[in-house]
Amino acid sequence: MDEATVTIFVCVSCRRRLGDADEPFDQPGRDLADALQARVRDGGQTSVTVTPVDCLAVCKRPCTIALAGADKWTYLIGDLDPDSHAEEIVAAALSFAASENGIVPWRERPVSFRKGVIARVPPIVAGNTTGNSVLEAVEP
Amino acid sequence: MDEATVTIFVCVSCRRRLGDADEPFDQPGRDLADALQARVRDGGQTSVTVTPVDCLAVCKRPCTIALAGADKWTYLIGDLDPDSHAEEIVAAALSFAASENGIVPWRERPVSFRKGVIARVPPIVAGNTTGNSVLEAVEP
Repeated sequence: MDEATVTIFVCVSCRRRLGDADEPFDQPGRDLADALQARVRDGGQTSVTVTPVDCLAVCKRPCTIALAGADKWTYLIGDLDPDSHAEEIVAAALSFAASENGIVPWRERPVSFRKGVIARVPPIVAGNTTGNSVLEAVEP
Repeated sequence: MDEATVTIFVCVSCRRRLGDADEPFDQPGRDLADALQARVRDGGQTSVTVTPVDCLAVCKRPCTIALAGADKWTYLIGDLDPDSHAEEIVAAALSFAASENGIVPWRERPVSFRKGVIARVPPIVAGNTTGNSVLEAVEP
């Protein structure tokens, strides 16, 4: 039961513009959350939780997700597509869960993660317990 | 000792372009971190920790900060200036610390926070303990 766990937060609010005037936008986050939940369930990935979220406040780069885990850096990734990226998101979440601090080596991240990074945030423990700088020579 | 605490992570990596060819960019995050630490210290704000961070991966919107606290939403804010915004960042951090879940009412946030929001992430507890949706009718 000491298995490292990861939560994939999936924004289900942001709108994606479409060319069709009858339906000017869709909200692809819901489809992405469904696709991820199906893959996690079918793959028996008990270390991964998929949680739909009402707005991650990124808005302009749907779909957006956040990978979060205890004592790990949190990563926000945008420009993701339900049809193209569900499989590599789950794989990246497993790499994230297996990593010591959430920082997966750059070369091991899928291209969608390298191009789509919105932001990252250190684990809160580091800040609150020491107040020292978080200055690591690591890849963003 | 049950006082709610907040960490202000300050990115000290991102570069800001300058007009001067002799010095094409500066790194204003270091000045912002220093300004925030001075205000927190001088104000005796024991509930606020200022932690410089080597890259929050936002890059294009310096200065960038993240407000984080236990069981609260994390907020990433960009486009902040060391000279203009240090005072309101500390005030916003105190409002954040005093809030139940990190979501401060929109009207109570400084303009710099309303315009500069990069992203937000729910507290990890919600995702990992329930796996249910985080669907609240709240302002981003």
